[in-house]
Amino acid sequence: MTNRVLFQPDNVTVEVSSGDNLLSAAALAGIYIPASCGGDGVCGKCKVQLIEGTLKSKTDNSLSREELKSNIHLACTSRVESDVTIKIPENVRNDGGALKKITKNTKNISAASSPVQTRVGMLSPPVQKIFLTLPLPTISDNVSDMQRLIREIIKALPDTREVKYDHPELLRDLSLTLREKNWQITVLLLLPKHKNDAIRIIAVEPGDTTSRLYGLALDIGTTTMTGHLIDLNNGQSIDEYTAYNAQVSSGEDVISRIIYSQRSNGLKYLQEQAVKTINSIIEAICKSQIIRPSDIHYIMAAGNTVMAHLLLGLESKFIREAPYVPGISHFPLVKAASLGILAHPSVRLFLYPCVASYVGGDIVAGIHGAGIYHSEKISLYIDIGTNGEIVVGNNQWMLTAACSAGPAFEGGGIKYGMRASQGAIENFFIHEQSLEPMIVTVGNTNPRGICGSGLIAIVPELLASGIIDQRGHFTSVHDHPRIRKSADCWEYVLAWAHDTLIKEDIVITEIDIDNLIRAKGALFAGYQTLIASVGLTFKDIDQFILAGNFGSSIDLERAISIGLLPDVDRERFHYLGNGSLLGCRLSLLNHQHFLEHRRARSLMTNVELSDNAEFMNYYMAALFLPHTDKTLFPSCFAKPDK
Amino acid sequence: MTNRVLFQPDNVTVEVSSGDNLLSAAALAGIYIPASCGGDGVCGKCKVQLIEGTLKSKTDNSLSREELKSNIHLACTSRVESDVTIKIPENVRNDGGALKKITKNTKNISAASSPVQTRVGMLSPPVQKIFLTLPLPTISDNVSDMQRLIREIIKALPDTREVKYDHPELLRDLSLTLREKNWQITVLLLLPKHKNDAIRIIAVEPGDTTSRLYGLALDIGTTTMTGHLIDLNNGQSIDEYTAYNAQVSSGEDVISRIIYSQRSNGLKYLQEQAVKTINSIIEAICKSQIIRPSDIHYIMAAGNTVMAHLLLGLESKFIREAPYVPGISHFPLVKAASLGILAHPSVRLFLYPCVASYVGGDIVAGIHGAGIYHSEKISLYIDIGTNGEIVVGNNQWMLTAACSAGPAFEGGGIKYGMRASQGAIENFFIHEQSLEPMIVTVGNTNPRGICGSGLIAIVPELLASGIIDQRGHFTSVHDHPRIRKSADCWEYVLAWAHDTLIKEDIVITEIDIDNLIRAKGALFAGYQTLIASVGLTFKDIDQFILAGNFGSSIDLERAISIGLLPDVDRERFHYLGNGSLLGCRLSLLNHQHFLEHRRARSLMTNVELSDNAEFMNYYMAALFLPHTDKTLFPSCFAKPDK
Repeated sequence: MTNRVLFQPDNVTVEVSSGDNLLSAAALAGIYIPASCGGDGVCGKCKVQLIEGTLKSKTDNSLSREELKSNIHLACTSRVESDVTIKIPENVRNDGGALKKITKNTKNISAASSPVQTRVGMLSPPVQKIFLTLPLPTISDNVSDMQRLIREIIKALPDTREVKYDHPELLRDLSLTLREKNWQITVLLLLPKHKNDAIRIIAVEPGDTTSRLYGLALDIGTTTMTGHLIDLNNGQSIDEYTAYNAQVSSGEDVISRIIYSQRSNGLKYLQEQAVKTINSIIEAICKSQIIRPSDIHYIMAAGNTVMAHLLLGLESKFIREAPYVPGISHFPLVKAASLGILAHPSVRLFLYPCVASYVGGDIVAGIHGAGIYHSEKISLYIDIGTNGEIVVGNNQWMLTAACSAGPAFEGGGIKYGMRASQGAIENFFIHEQSLEPMIVTVGNTNPRGICGSGLIAIVPELLASGIIDQRGHFTSVHDHPRIRKSADCWEYVLAWAHDTLIKEDIVITEIDIDNLIRAKGALFAGYQTLIASVGLTFKDIDQFILAGNFGSSIDLERAISIGLLPDVDRERFHYLGNGSLLGCRLSLLNHQHFLEHRRARSLMTNVELSDNAEFMNYYMAALFLPHTDKTLFPSCFAKPDK
Repeated sequence: MTNRVLFQPDNVTVEVSSGDNLLSAAALAGIYIPASCGGDGVCGKCKVQLIEGTLKSKTDNSLSREELKSNIHLACTSRVESDVTIKIPENVRNDGGALKKITKNTKNISAASSPVQTRVGMLSPPVQKIFLTLPLPTISDNVSDMQRLIREIIKALPDTREVKYDHPELLRDLSLTLREKNWQITVLLLLPKHKNDAIRIIAVEPGDTTSRLYGLALDIGTTTMTGHLIDLNNGQSIDEYTAYNAQVSSGEDVISRIIYSQRSNGLKYLQEQAVKTINSIIEAICKSQIIRPSDIHYIMAAGNTVMAHLLLGLESKFIREAPYVPGISHFPLVKAASLGILAHPSVRLFLYPCVASYVGGDIVAGIHGAGIYHSEKISLYIDIGTNGEIVVGNNQWMLTAACSAGPAFEGGGIKYGMRASQGAIENFFIHEQSLEPMIVTVGNTNPRGICGSGLIAIVPELLASGIIDQRGHFTSVHDHPRIRKSADCWEYVLAWAHDTLIKEDIVITEIDIDNLIRAKGALFAGYQTLIASVGLTFKDIDQFILAGNFGSSIDLERAISIGLLPDVDRERFHYLGNGSLLGCRLSLLNHQHFLEHRRARSLMTNVELSDNAEFMNYYMAALFLPHTDKTLFPSCFAKPDK
C-alpha cells in the first residue's frame, strides 16, 4: 500500500510504501532533516511534528513530555502508517528549507512496459505438464510402457514430431509409476531448444499433479544471489529471496575467486559454496511457500562469466590471463541436481551464455529481458559494479565492453567502504548553511560505513557545497569541525564516533574521492569509446538503460553531476533493476521468448578496452567532476545556483 | 590353416583346421569309430592307423609296442598337424563302413556374403577422431575455448550443421587439455542418430591419438556374453572373448532372473553382475591386446529384452505377467561408464531395440546384420534357444514370434543335460550293426553330460537305428546291454560309468526324448503359425536363416529328420552364427548401416503365440518324429534305407 507524505512548510509531497521510514521519506522528498546518527534515535536531532495521520514510532527517552504532547517524533525511528502531514520545526529546519528536489524521474523498464510484454502475455513456459489416462495394455496391444506413453503424448500434442526422454531418472520407475494410479499420470515435458527438435519427457508422476508447476529465476551474483519463484500455471511471481554468495569468504571479487580456484580443491570448494547458496535460497522459498524443491520444474539462471564457470566446476584460470579467454561461452543445459542443487533429478538449469570473460550471462539476460535486440532504437545499456559492463546497439548490432571501474562502487578501496548491508550510508545530504549532514542508512540504524550509492550521494553533495572542487580536492575555504586534515589527507566527518556502530568517526577522504573519480572516469570513457567506435555520439543514443541493483538506487542528477552518467535529456534514462533476474523471469514465462536469447547473444560482439588507446585518452579526460570537457555537461555548468 | 583328412578304406575326405581333434574330424566326415569314452584315451577303442602325414598324439599306455610301430594312434587324443591319410583298421570298423555322410551343406551368411557388405566395405564408424591444430587465442580473437574448438571442427568438417558436446565429462578439463600440447588435439566425435542432427564432441585428447580407435561389439546372452573388438581405423577384427554371465548364479533363465530382480536389492545385484561380466570381457581383451579400456570408443550391444532391462536397471516384472509388456523397447543411448562399465566416461553403449518381451534386441541385431530388411526375398529367421525366436518377412514387412520351447535345447529338463561346456556330448553316432556309440565331447574329454547339439545328434541316431519310434518311444526290439528299463522309464546308455567324468552311467531317457519332441514341436508350430498368418507356406520362403551359436552347430539333415527344421531344399538354409554379434559388428563399421537398424526394427510386428488357437493345433500335430503330416517331410519318408 502506498502512503502520501506531505512535508510542511515546504509543501513537498512524496509517495512511500506503508511502513517506510520517515527519514528515508524525507531524503527521497529532498527535505533536509539533521540526522547525523543515521537512525536508532541516538543523536535525537531529527525531530518532526506529526500534523495529521499515523506514525509508528519507537518510544524514545530523548523526547520530553511536552514534545510527546505536541506530537513530536524522531524521524529516524518513525514509520509511515497512513497518509501523513509532517511539519519540520523551525529550529530543526535551521532555515535550510527544502533541498533541491531530487527526483528519480526515470522510468522503470519492467515486464509491464517493455516490448517483450506482448508476447510474454501469452503464458507458455518452457516446461509443460499434461495429464493423461493411458489405455490399459492387452495381449493385442502390449507395446512397451514407454511406447504407450509416447503414443498418448503424441495424441495429446499432435504437432509433436518426436519424443525423447531422460535416462536414467525417468526410466527406472516408469513401469511402476504408470500403474500406481491405474495408468493416470502427469507428464512433465521439456520443450526443445530448437523449434523442430524432439520434445523431451523429463518426469512422470502418478495421478494429476498439473496444479504444481513452478519456475525459479536465479541471479548468480558475485556478492549475492537472488531467487525469484514463479507459478508457471498463471505467471504469478510468488516469492523472492536473496542470500549472500557463500563464496565471499574465499574472495570478494571474481579475480580473487579465480585465484582461490587454483588452490588444491579450491574449484570444488567454490562450486560447493555456490550450490550451497542456491540451495539456501530454494529452501527458504520452499519453506515460506509450502512447496517442495521437486515442484520447481525449471531453473533459469544468469551470472557473470566467472560465476558461471565456478558453478559448473570449470577451469577459470584463463579468464584472468591475457588474452582473457573463457572456457566456454554457451553453457550446457545441465540437470540442476547433477551439480548438487536441491531439485527434481530431471529439472534443468539454464545459464545465460556469456559474451566474453568480463561480459557475462547477466548482461545477456538483461539485454534479452529489456528487449533491446528487438528494437531499431539505439540503446546504451549500463550495468555498474566492480566491472562496469556496457552494451550499445539495437536489433541489428551490439557492441559490448567491460571497463574495470575498480571496487569503489561496491565500497572497495574506500576507507569506510562496505557493502550495501545494515548500517551502510546509502543516502546523504549536506545543509547548505550549516554543512551538517543528513545520513540515511540501510536498515535505518547507526552508520557502520559507506556503500556505493552512499558514495554517489556524498561526493556530489561535497562538490555542490564547495567542500571539494572539480578535481576532488578539499577546497579548505570552510572552517568547520567536520572538515579536517588527518595524518594522510583531508577528510569530511560523516558521523561522529558516538553516533556510529563502530564507535569511531566515519569519514570520507580525498583518497576515497579520487578512487571514485577513477571509477566513474573509466565508465564514462567506456561509453565514449564504444559509441565512438561506431561513429556515434551520445546524441544518437535513443535510450540509456541502467541495470543492476546499484543502478536502481542511483540518483540521476547526482550521477550526472559527477560525470558518472552523460548529461543528456533525462527522459532518455530508464531504470531496469536487476536485468539478470528480469531476463530469467521472462524466459520462464514464454518459451518463444526464451529461444530468442540466442539471437540476442549472437548480435553481441565484445570490444577489449584494456589495450585500447582511445579508451586511455577518454579516461584521462574524465578524471574530473563531472569532466574536463564542459561541453559534455552543459546542464551542470548552466545551473544558476552553482 | 586348413588340413585335409582322408579316411580309408571309405575314401572320404574332410577339411579341418590344423590342430583339430581326429575323432571330431571323423565325426564330421561321417566315419564311425567306436569311441564310448568321448576322449582322453580311457576306453582305448578308437584305434586308427596313420598312413601319411603328421598327427600329434598323447603318449598312451593302452597302445602296445607293436601298435606304436605300426603307426596306430587313438583318434580321441590325436590332433591333425598336416594333411593326413588315416586308415580305419578292419577290427575297428567292425564292418560298419562309412556312415551316411553328414554334410553341413549350408552356406554361411557372414559379412563377406551378405548384401550389407558392399556398404560396410566403406568403413565409416559411428565415432570419428580428427586431429586439429587450433590457432592460438589473441586479444583480437579471444572467443571461448569451446567456440574456438567448434569453429575448427566445422572448418574441418564443412558439412556439419551443428556441434554439441558432452557435459560434464568434456568441459571440466577442456581449457587445460587444449593447452597441454600447444593447441594440438584429437577430437572424438559421435555421429548423430538422425542424419541432420548435431555432431557431438565426446572427448578431446591432447596431441594426435587418431591411431587408437576401437569399437566393441557385445552379445549380452542370458548364459554367456561375448565381446568382439574391432579396430575402427581399418575395420579389422582384433579379438573375441566369451564369459559366462555372472547373473547365472541368480537363475538359469530369464524368468528366474526376473523373479530374482523382485527381491530386495535384487535388481541392483543383477545389474552389477551384468556389468561385472562385461568388465571381465573388456579387461581380458584389453590385457591380451595391450590397449586401455578408454581406447574403446563405442560399445554396440544386443541382448534379449530381459537382459537389456536388467543391464539398464529397469523394472522387468511386467515382462513376465500377461500381457507381457516390456518397460521400454527403444533403449536410450547411455554412457557406458554411467552403468559402471570400464570405459571412457563419454563412450556410448548402444543397445539394439527389442520388439516385444520375448523378441529382443538380439533378434533385431540379427535381422539387421543379415540384411533381411533390405531384400525382396522372403526369409524365415530362426534363433533356437530356450525361447525359439522366429521372424518371417522381407523389406516390406516382418512378423516375429517367440515360442517357449522349454530349456531342452540348452540341456534343461534332460536327465544328464548340461550347457555346451567341457565334457558335454556334442556329437554322436550309432554303429548300425553293433548299436555301439561314437561320442564326441566339447574339449574331447570324458563325457559329463549332454548339451543341446548332442541331443539333436542322439535322437536322430536312435530313430534311424530303430531304437526309438516316431513317437519317441523305445521299440524294445533290440536286446542290447545299452538299452534298458530303469525304475522310471526306458533309456539308452551313452557312456558307462567308468568312461565318464561323473563316474555314473550317462543315459538318455524316454522322458528326455519327449521333452525334445515338445521343444521342437513348439518351434515347428511357430514357423507354421507365423507363415500361415500371412497366407504363405514353406514353399514361399526363399531362405531359412539359422542364427545363434546353437544354430551353427546343428546338423541340417538330422535337424530335419526329427522335424526341428522344415524339409525343404537344403540350399535354402543359411547359417548366420551369432546374429546379435554380427549386427553389432556391422553397425560399428558403418554409421549409415547402423542408422538403418531403426528401419529394420520398425518393420517388425510381434504375434503372440501364447493364446493362439492355430498355434496349439499345429503344436499337437508336431509332437512326432519328424511330424504327423508325412507330406511335410517327403525326403525323410522317401529314404530307401529307412
